[in-house]
Amino acid sequence: MRYSNLFGRATKSELKEDLSTNAKFLIKGGFVDQLMSGSYTLLPLGFRVVKKIEQIIREEINKTGAQEMLMPLLHPKDVWNETGRWETAKEVMYQFKKDDKEFALSFTHEEIVLDLIRKHAFAYKDFPIKIYHFSTKFRNEPRAKSGLLRGREFLMKDLYSLHTSVENLDKYYWEVADSYIKIFKKLNLDAKIVEAAGGVFTDEHTHEFQVLCETGEDKIFYCEKCDFCQNKEIATVQENDRCPKCGDIIKSGNSIEVGNIFKFGTFYSKKMNVHFMDEKGKEQLAHFASYGIGLTRLMGTLAEMFHDGKGIIWPSVVAPFQVHLISIGKNADKVYEKLEKDGVEVLYDDRDVSPGEKFTDADLIGIPVRLVVSEKSGDKIEYKERISEEKILLDYDEVLEKIKTI
Amino acid sequence: MRYSNLFGRATKSELKEDLSTNAKFLIKGGFVDQLMSGSYTLLPLGFRVVKKIEQIIREEINKTGAQEMLMPLLHPKDVWNETGRWETAKEVMYQFKKDDKEFALSFTHEEIVLDLIRKHAFAYKDFPIKIYHFSTKFRNEPRAKSGLLRGREFLMKDLYSLHTSVENLDKYYWEVADSYIKIFKKLNLDAKIVEAAGGVFTDEHTHEFQVLCETGEDKIFYCEKCDFCQNKEIATVQENDRCPKCGDIIKSGNSIEVGNIFKFGTFYSKKMNVHFMDEKGKEQLAHFASYGIGLTRLMGTLAEMFHDGKGIIWPSVVAPFQVHLISIGKNADKVYEKLEKDGVEVLYDDRDVSPGEKFTDADLIGIPVRLVVSEKSGDKIEYKERISEEKILLDYDEVLEKIKTI
Repeated sequence: MRYSNLFGRATKSELKEDLSTNAKFLIKGGFVDQLMSGSYTLLPLGFRVVKKIEQIIREEINKTGAQEMLMPLLHPKDVWNETGRWETAKEVMYQFKKDDKEFALSFTHEEIVLDLIRKHAFAYKDFPIKIYHFSTKFRNEPRAKSGLLRGREFLMKDLYSLHTSVENLDKYYWEVADSYIKIFKKLNLDAKIVEAAGGVFTDEHTHEFQVLCETGEDKIFYCEKCDFCQNKEIATVQENDRCPKCGDIIKSGNSIEVGNIFKFGTFYSKKMNVHFMDEKGKEQLAHFASYGIGLTRLMGTLAEMFHDGKGIIWPSVVAPFQVHLISIGKNADKVYEKLEKDGVEVLYDDRDVSPGEKFTDADLIGIPVRLVVSEKSGDKIEYKERISEEKILLDYDEVLEKIKTI
Repeated sequence: MRYSNLFGRATKSELKEDLSTNAKFLIKGGFVDQLMSGSYTLLPLGFRVVKKIEQIIREEINKTGAQEMLMPLLHPKDVWNETGRWETAKEVMYQFKKDDKEFALSFTHEEIVLDLIRKHAFAYKDFPIKIYHFSTKFRNEPRAKSGLLRGREFLMKDLYSLHTSVENLDKYYWEVADSYIKIFKKLNLDAKIVEAAGGVFTDEHTHEFQVLCETGEDKIFYCEKCDFCQNKEIATVQENDRCPKCGDIIKSGNSIEVGNIFKFGTFYSKKMNVHFMDEKGKEQLAHFASYGIGLTRLMGTLAEMFHDGKGIIWPSVVAPFQVHLISIGKNADKVYEKLEKDGVEVLYDDRDVSPGEKFTDADLIGIPVRLVVSEKSGDKIEYKERISEEKILLDYDEVLEKIKTI
């Protein structure tokens, strides 16, 4: 992609002082544009990042045997009424009336998926059911101030599973937890599994995946030696307490929630009559769980976690391009074309602007590898990684080899 | 995919009499599930079809130099007020108030994309702009009776382009029209470019892409010899008239609209102040067009166009799987595993049900190739295409060769 053609380039305009770090860098870098408070357009650069995050999630979730599908975003009131959440989740849900019909926008999909499942699964042989989608969620956030971390509208992967027994649900629940940890590791995020409250989802405790981050809105108490970890909402320990599990010292830190998993048991199935016929021909309630990861929130988290004063430093697996190619006083078209031909994703800054501006924008955008073609570099190409100050001159083939290691 | 594990299998339940053909087959085949009037869940099978349609569209649209992105679905009133469409499109738009803020759901994105563009493009060098997204549209349809052809909620590819001159817009407009014709051809649809009215989009005439289909809601008057073609809303001719372009006989037929393109010129740019600085430093209004293809509607159209009494007959490029493998009285696991290993997408009916039921479901689902492994076929595999009654016995390698030709 030629940078001169890209829609949504780096901006020099001054942004509001009180913007969160992730919003500041993502807006300045040309990844997103704010339509209104808590609502962002994914510009082509940001869209590429989110699509890469999506694909990493898809691959891991598919490995658990889950099937991808797509549920509607506009919901009829009657389905939400069955569990009482039309009332209890009123604050967070967008609800409205049109021509005497009442609707809600998807803030989650538990009721909708159960309505679907009870029409399609009847016998124990139809279970377990593991279905998911990537879709839009809407939540009424009066104070949407954390950029991509908290939106009125955002993208989420939500997975739902139904089982014929507690044991079977438990097994899959922890399989998904493992899968989540793998997803976050691939994104360079060291997520902790945290015991937490269930909000408008359940009265039981749930599990969140939290990443320690100074600017995070959450706070967790954790043990560095074992896996004990609690959200401050439900914490039974304080900093410097002894870990109730292993006796080590409890620490605390701000954090960002990057995923959550909810075990509902038969709570919702009972309210919505989701039964199956067991092996003895007896009707039983199905056991239900749901699992969420916010995609756009993950992009925000990565920007919040991986940046320096100059801009974002993307993990290579989700960088919008693998290579940022810069031409200085000399046309780099040939190198650009060769790289594209060799299957490398290249953002090629071919603009007629100063080298300084090109370097500044490259640092802001945060692609892992920067290549410079100039009179100075001669037949060679200057290679520099975003995370390092070292610049080396390489032949084209050496560049190609080195890119593969990033 | 093992059919026994698939969520959303063929159903034998009787459906409402008045369902449209596409809804009937798509529901019975396990492609979609109706949440409410005009709103469908894409079950795993239907999701696969739509994703394939999406990819065909993406590849062609990318060739025109357009860039993929994603715009929000929840819109603030003020942006829609700038063009007056908050009022004029009130009937079709879902609008609501929450905590004293007024919102609309995306029924289209012209205003939203122009609001975005005026923040990112300033000089003639920033043009042309060609951006698109696949996203959800919401339209208040009091009578949503045509299954996937007309929904309250549906998936659409919408492309928007901005240009510095009428000529440049015209050129791209017809380039996209060509691209659309190619997309429809790939889907086995012979679409006509039809002059039509602009509805809530424009007072000018626009162009629709219509496919002749007995059950279509639209009606067109066309010349079989030349490209003259008008929607009945604006038609200046009747059946058996002479074609005003070439003098041949005008015919008429019911049809389904599968795409549309709108040339707005400077109408919206003027209302929304979308300017650019030209080469002489003078401020000019940008020229605007938009282009839509309904993805879920296309799936409905394909079901409406390609079926027989037994079920759908998918064009192979969008079939949910390439091969429907059936085992009869004999395990076909090895053939299944080999096919998967050889990169063939297989739906494997491994259920313990009668051969008759398996054959009926295979016809209903409409995958282009059916393979049967049974005692009778011995070491061979019975090969049959959905469009033919001929069954032949082949070796595995012969099957593999033959699949490639479909």
